[in-house]
This record gives sequence, structure tokens and C-alpha cells, in this order.
Amino acid sequence: EGKVMTFRSLYHTEVINDAGLNGHARVTLGGDFDVLTSSPLQDDPGTNPEQLLGLALATCLNATIEAEEGRRGLEHAAEVKVGVDMGKDTEGYQFFLDCQVRIPQVAEAEAQEILAKCERRCPVAKIVGSSQNVRVHLVKQFAF
Amino acid sequence: EGKVMTFRSLYHTEVINDAGLNGHARVTLGGDFDVLTSSPLQDDPGTNPEQLLGLALATCLNATIEAEEGRRGLEHAAEVKVGVDMGKDTEGYQFFLDCQVRIPQVAEAEAQEILAKCERRCPVAKIVGSSQNVRVHLVKQFAF
Repeated sequence: EGKVMTFRSLYHTEVINDAGLNGHARVTLGGDFDVLTSSPLQDDPGTNPEQLLGLALATCLNATIEAEEGRRGLEHAAEVKVGVDMGKDTEGYQFFLDCQVRIPQVAEAEAQEILAKCERRCPVAKIVGSSQNVRVHLVKQFAF
Repeated sequence: EGKVMTFRSLYHTEVINDAGLNGHARVTLGGDFDVLTSSPLQDDPGTNPEQLLGLALATCLNATIEAEEGRRGLEHAAEVKVGVDMGKDTEGYQFFLDCQVRIPQVAEAEAQEILAKCERRCPVAKIVGSSQNVRVHLVKQFAF
């Protein structure tokens, strides 16, 4: 299928969901993280795929920016916020991710340059960034 | 840019990462989920983008399958496991997701039919599924 890893693996982890929407999903190899999940449409405690996906993108992109801040001798001040909306689709549901990035310690031109570079470097951005449902952009203040 | 939500939002949540790779990322609207994150290449406690992305896909796809099991009058028995590998890229890193699905209570032909339908319905699969780095497939037993 062409979907073959051609790089040496530097890290391998495995996770499982067997419960479905309401229950626990967990890491089975490479950590001991366990999360309680629930429907976003109910008021039950727990997280959901929307939040997990948003946290994956926010953390990966900001970690990538943090490394670039370091290369440039800048303090770490960047923040990444992701708003996730769920909408009904012709088949099932869709998620829409609005990823807003603040890099407040530099001028806008440099912030744009840092973000463009980090979007090309960040592994999660590489996977989700080509989707029409995902937008990544620089902001002065977060606004959803 | 064409990246505009054209559906009514049924659910909205917001998450933030301000710490970078080592620290807390958290939900700021639509829940109170907070995660400790750390580098996958260090032995520090905490989860990481690899696990968060894997958990998002595993939970979303299995919840979608669970709904389809219900429509067919089947017990919920499906399990979704995701293996995530990190490899060095020409620019930064890449993640590779091997998403393995077990639907053990039905014959293989029906299991393939359920999975194909649910890949088209699952919001996370819609976003990540077109990436060359993501493979989703039916298995009898999990093997990574």
C-alpha cells in the first residue's frame, strides 16, 4: 500500500481502546497512561477523541516551536491552543480543528517564519495538516 | 483558504499547551482534562503526542465501530490497538501509525465491511487516514 515505515524507529508505543466511547483507553507499551473517556454529548466525566486529538497537535507543535526557540536563543514563550468542533456529516461526524499559535516574544515576521518551519517539522502537523478540516495559524490573542 | 467549517457545531472544546514538551497540557473549555507530558526519549513520567494521537484514533474508531455493532444487533467486542513509531525525517521527525482492528464476533467478510464503513464515518480516521504514515487494517490477533 505504500504505507510502510522507511525510517529506523527511535521510539515505539502502543495504545488500546476496547471499551468503545465510555470507559478506559490506555497505553499498553511505552508508558502507563490511562484515560477515562465519555461521549462529548453527555455530561459524564472523561475526555474524548476531540480533546485527545487537540492535545496531540497542541503539544507536538508547541514542543517543536520550543526546540526552535532554543535554537534561536529565545526564551520559551510560545503557546498553542486548539479549538475542536464536531459537526454532523453526510456519513457520521466530522471534527474541525482551529489551531492558534502565539509566539509573542518576537516580531510578527519572525513568528511567521518560526511557525512555517515548525509546521514542516512537527510530526502531528505533518499527519493532520493536509486535511481540509485543520487550520493552523498565528494569532496575537486567542479567539474562538 | 477553504478550511472553513460548514456544519453546525454540536460540540466545542478547547485545549492548550503552553509548557512545550515537559509540563502540563490541558482542556480549557468543555472539560477539565489535564495531562502531564514528557519526552518519549526520556524516562520521565508523562504521556506524549504519540500516545495522545494513538488514543484519539483508537477511541474514535472503536466508538464508531461500537455504534455500528449496535445497529447490527451485535454485542460490543471490537478492539482497536494503535502502534506509533517515531523516526527521524529530513526535517524533524515523523510518526507512523499502525492501527489494528479486531472484530472477533463476526466472520471476516462482515468484519471487513464494518471496518470499511467505520473508516468512512470516524472523524479522526477522516483526518488522519489519507496520510501515507497511517495504516488501518483488520487483524485476527494484534501483532506489532
